[in-house]
Amino acid sequence: MTGRPSRRQLFGVAGAAAVGAAAGGAIVAVDNEAPQQPPVRAISPYGEHQPAIAGPTPEHAELVALNLLPETDKAALGRLMRLWSDDIVALADGRPAPGDSTPELAVANVALTTTVGLGPRVFELTGHKPPGLDDLPVMRHDRLEPAWSGGDLLVMVGADDAVSVVHAVRRLVADAKPFATPLWRQTGFWNSTGADGRPVTGRNLFGQVDGTGNPAVGTPDFDHTVWSSDGPEWFRRGTTLVVRRIRMNLDAWDELTRSEQERAVGRTLSTGAPLTGSAEHDELDLQARDADGRLVIAENSHARLSHHSVNDGRRIFRKGLNYVQDNGPTRESGLIFLSHQADVAGQFLPLLARLDAADALNDWTTTIGSAVFALPPGFQADSWLAHELLS
Amino acid sequence: MTGRPSRRQLFGVAGAAAVGAAAGGAIVAVDNEAPQQPPVRAISPYGEHQPAIAGPTPEHAELVALNLLPETDKAALGRLMRLWSDDIVALADGRPAPGDSTPELAVANVALTTTVGLGPRVFELTGHKPPGLDDLPVMRHDRLEPAWSGGDLLVMVGADDAVSVVHAVRRLVADAKPFATPLWRQTGFWNSTGADGRPVTGRNLFGQVDGTGNPAVGTPDFDHTVWSSDGPEWFRRGTTLVVRRIRMNLDAWDELTRSEQERAVGRTLSTGAPLTGSAEHDELDLQARDADGRLVIAENSHARLSHHSVNDGRRIFRKGLNYVQDNGPTRESGLIFLSHQADVAGQFLPLLARLDAADALNDWTTTIGSAVFALPPGFQADSWLAHELLS
Ligand code: HEM
Ligand code: HEM
Repeated sequence: MTGRPSRRQLFGVAGAAAVGAAAGGAIVAVDNEAPQQPPVRAISPYGEHQPAIAGPTPEHAELVALNLLPETDKAALGRLMRLWSDDIVALADGRPAPGDSTPELAVANVALTTTVGLGPRVFELTGHKPPGLDDLPVMRHDRLEPAWSGGDLLVMVGADDAVSVVHAVRRLVADAKPFATPLWRQTGFWNSTGADGRPVTGRNLFGQVDGTGNPAVGTPDFDHTVWSSDGPEWFRRGTTLVVRRIRMNLDAWDELTRSEQERAVGRTLSTGAPLTGSAEHDELDLQARDADGRLVIAENSHARLSHHSVNDGRRIFRKGLNYVQDNGPTRESGLIFLSHQADVAGQFLPLLARLDAADALNDWTTTIGSAVFALPPGFQADSWLAHELLS
Repeated sequence: MTGRPSRRQLFGVAGAAAVGAAAGGAIVAVDNEAPQQPPVRAISPYGEHQPAIAGPTPEHAELVALNLLPETDKAALGRLMRLWSDDIVALADGRPAPGDSTPELAVANVALTTTVGLGPRVFELTGHKPPGLDDLPVMRHDRLEPAWSGGDLLVMVGADDAVSVVHAVRRLVADAKPFATPLWRQTGFWNSTGADGRPVTGRNLFGQVDGTGNPAVGTPDFDHTVWSSDGPEWFRRGTTLVVRRIRMNLDAWDELTRSEQERAVGRTLSTGAPLTGSAEHDELDLQARDADGRLVIAENSHARLSHHSVNDGRRIFRKGLNYVQDNGPTRESGLIFLSHQADVAGQFLPLLARLDAADALNDWTTTIGSAVFALPPGFQADSWLAHELLS
């Protein structure tokens, strides 16, 4: 449309160079006359696990929870999972899914992923419920709104491009129409690219680096935290997802001094380093005291109370999305808090209860939505989602 | 967070290569051990015109309309414009604006631009109203909602990154607080990058290529269409912006066959080519008839009725943003239609009236919001927005 190229356009032209560089420092010629191959930004829909789970937080994502229609039985749910599996494969590829009414909006190379979950009530139809998969009890600080809570099915689409997310969700919800009806929708965004183009952890709307304490993908710690290895057979290599919509009171937060803000978490705002360290990934020293004998990482600080060392080693794998919600001229802001763990009751709930009881952040955050889902393992080209449960 | 790089991350690593390529086919070495300079994605806040106007449609944008408080007089409005000008310079640079409460969210290299407009009522305070700058009369098909209409001030932020947009808007609205209060907010998105990473015109949520018929930036036709050259002195090199929030009935649109959809516009869905041509930018042949003697580009087709040749040569410069709006479990979709022209009454209104009277698209689109603003010319480092009007 105009002469000034966008980040994506610049990127596209140099895609092959970038891939080359990422692959290990190759020297690549970039020539405007003969542009390189486009970057490979398609993420395979197949695999042992649903692919988005261990992937990076997408720039844009939409979550839709649906409730099953009364007439949807186990066989019908199986039909929906087959339909969705076909959609997921096409969408990941940038191809229109069967029956797509706006096929031109299916674009490749936007790193599109789709993740599907099953809510607790589904297992009344199917049996074989993953242990611990129950709606969370209402916490003392919760102010849950039905508009953001519960759901029998979850479909979550993430991508680099918002148009692609909207298009994919429309397709998936349309295919679900004979089986299920939307209950809530949540849209969020995240930036995990620094000013220099390198990956960063990303920040929530309080400005905090958010995600540092996660187990690193690919480590035994991660696998043990996230993937189910006992429980029902069909659920092996699956995980659970807790979705908490958490309103953040930015105006009240702004009234604090920076050092009050940093004490509430136990980490600095500038780099996310623990108050006892200097770099983001430094280990927390939970014993360190200042000259006055006070704990540097305060007793009620979020980083202390959520640390695995004070939670019997229990960990979770978090992936937040920022959200804004306009109500006429006023705006609400917050975090769509997403947490993966093999077992909700065993890993997530004790942590949640501890934070609800004492977390300094509770003064500026309010949970207004809550839902839990079992995310079936991934599927292969000759199969479909949750077929072990539903066939 | 994980090993898989995002488009932006890939892009960032190869940024210098991309810039080199864009600049004319240079051969650039890309080496992972010694990454290149980051891409230059800062857009200068200074210039003859406000910089976003002739730039590409941003990936994300937010528009906020505000009404002046009763006590805001001309001098106070001047103070706000000085404050905003400082903010605009800092934000474009990725620096925290003065008083920023979450300075860590100011990120460079996201192509952030801010555009400011003055609504018709402002000129009751200041005089020197651009001729023709009046709220549009209500059209027969309009179903205007006060929630999306009017406003004394407009601030619009666009960027490659949604977090940056939210952060910038928060800063600008906070600085306006002593002077003006938000009336409405609209958030939209656009994708002008093809699967191969090259620039494309982009598509609206009907799947149509949207933007083809625009005068090309930099041509005399563009300058004449967009920039004011008569009217009050302070407004030379300024322009106007019409904001129409247009709901699109995707479900009803889906009921049409593809050829019905294409006849309604007079262009193909696949490439956006006129039905009388084969490539997107082919000229329309408005006289061509098919074997049955019917006009190929139908009498009531949108492309015919909006074409400058049937509008006494009058043109506009359009920049749409897709939007979705969730109302509980249901979703509304549409286009934040943005149109620049030197003169609203002279260029835009006759076209709008013609489309309202006969456009085939009216069956699937409904305008629910409408606002008009004068966009002052750009400013230089030693000056501020609209200083010729307000000092
Ligand atoms: C809006 C609400 C919340 C905000 C703003 C927030 C923010 C943060 C921040 C800034 C950190 C430190 C950096 C990091 O490790 O990521 C952190 C860590 C953490 N948070 Fe939260 N958090 C919120 C809610 C929650 C909830 C509801 C839970 C779980 C019930 C939780 C669990 C954790 C865990 C496990 C860590 C890592 C602790 C470790 O280092 O092992 N957070 N959070
Ligand atoms: C949701 C509502 C609308 C949709 C979906 C829509 C869609 C389109 C499409 C697909 C084209 C052809 C491709 C192009 O040139 O961009 C087009 C062209 C155009 N539209 Fe619209 N449009 C809408 C509303 C409007 C309105 C309200 C106006 C002005 C009052 C307008 C003015 C134009 C103009 C001037 C052209 C270019 C004609 C030329 O080739 O010279 N459109 N529009």
